[in-house]
Amino acid sequence: MNLILIEPRELADGGRVTLSDRRAGHLRDVLRSQPGQVVRVGLLDGPRGTAVVETADAAGVTLRCAWGKDVPPIPRVDLLLALPRPKVLRRLWAQLAALGVGRILLTNAARVERVYFDTHVLDAATYRPLLIEGLQQVQDTRLPEVGIHRQLKILVEDQLDRLCPDSLRLIADPSARQPLTDAVPGDYPGRLLLAVGPEGGWTAYELDLLARHGFQPVGLGARTLRTDTACLALLALAHAALSEVSSQ
Amino acid sequence: MNLILIEPRELADGGRVTLSDRRAGHLRDVLRSQPGQVVRVGLLDGPRGTAVVETADAAGVTLRCAWGKDVPPIPRVDLLLALPRPKVLRRLWAQLAALGVGRILLTNAARVERVYFDTHVLDAATYRPLLIEGLQQVQDTRLPEVGIHRQLKILVEDQLDRLCPDSLRLIADPSARQPLTDAVPGDYPGRLLLAVGPEGGWTAYELDLLARHGFQPVGLGARTLRTDTACLALLALAHAALSEVSSQ
Repeated sequence: MNLILIEPRELADGGRVTLSDRRAGHLRDVLRSQPGQVVRVGLLDGPRGTAVVETADAAGVTLRCAWGKDVPPIPRVDLLLALPRPKVLRRLWAQLAALGVGRILLTNAARVERVYFDTHVLDAATYRPLLIEGLQQVQDTRLPEVGIHRQLKILVEDQLDRLCPDSLRLIADPSARQPLTDAVPGDYPGRLLLAVGPEGGWTAYELDLLARHGFQPVGLGARTLRTDTACLALLALAHAALSEVSSQ
Repeated sequence: MNLILIEPRELADGGRVTLSDRRAGHLRDVLRSQPGQVVRVGLLDGPRGTAVVETADAAGVTLRCAWGKDVPPIPRVDLLLALPRPKVLRRLWAQLAALGVGRILLTNAARVERVYFDTHVLDAATYRPLLIEGLQQVQDTRLPEVGIHRQLKILVEDQLDRLCPDSLRLIADPSARQPLTDAVPGDYPGRLLLAVGPEGGWTAYELDLLARHGFQPVGLGARTLRTDTACLALLALAHAALSEVSSQ
């Protein structure tokens, strides 16, 4: 936890916040916070800042926050992901937020098992703390937007232009020869939307649907990675291609 | 499991092998193998090939293998990794093998907890099947070499030149501005050795030791990733920089 993220509704007058959850435990037990100590904080979807510890005891930790002016930019990569197995998705949330993703669109597909939609890993109560954990690791404040879509066709035909306007659309395809880095023009200023299929792959119908809606195939070489590994590899490549690696 | 990996010692005369472990279960229950069916196989550290199912029943599955001529190349990236927490390392093995790594050097460092060395995740009996799982996912046959080193100084000063000769040495450093892709010359034909530190980072002494032995710092932007996410991101970038993405 390299940054303590605070929700706007938690803030009281004078920039004060009293924490009694995991964050308080981290401040007390890991950072050994004492009154007067200064720690890094962030306001969810707002600026980063610093906070002075006012009290720290078994009941909780009270901080007085001062915020910077700039709000971190929303990561320029969005992810359209065929819903993975719950166990895999549980592990992915924090890592996706850490690598940086603006929007996560989880979608049904022919080779997604229907029972995956019944999991509590899809409840905001489960995934939101995991996303925040990832943000705190990398000192970001921008919570990814999460959408859950039960019909790929409706998502792609009717909703995608509104949800992810003007994005360069790429689809991970084991048979594609073009690497992601070659598909993104140098100094491309816009956003990327990356589509990653289910473990069994997209069907021909789905591939055609996505191709007709502007998704260009990009490959990761001959190695057909597991969904979770592929997502992380593609996000790393996407951010490198956007030159965010050096400019952040 | 996109390829069934077979150990040379398992092969009997005529290229026959009888499996009764997880691989047999996969052939029977996932691939629904029947006599006469052809499946993809690989010989560990040898060629890929095809196999005809001869028998498939509750006792096991017998295959008759025919091997191709070419042996997949050893991945051109090696990893020098400060020993992560056992839970993290357990998850990493298969993913490292899947992304492609020739050699994994696990090392002690000042900020590695000593108890991490006592874990059974470091036993070949634990990690070898996980590495093989990763290889089977991506249809590779090259088992990464694993070394466990309790003294970073001895490893770097006395052993590294022999273990990883002539590698371009890079060290992941959150403070570095140069992205990995800029540190690798275009059409670089050789090998990369990537050093990734412990969660708490390398000490100044360790950074100096590594710098004196040719490790150039490369960054992943302002986001300080968790060890496991950083390893996967860096491996993806390293393979892309070596142009193996498109040439495999």
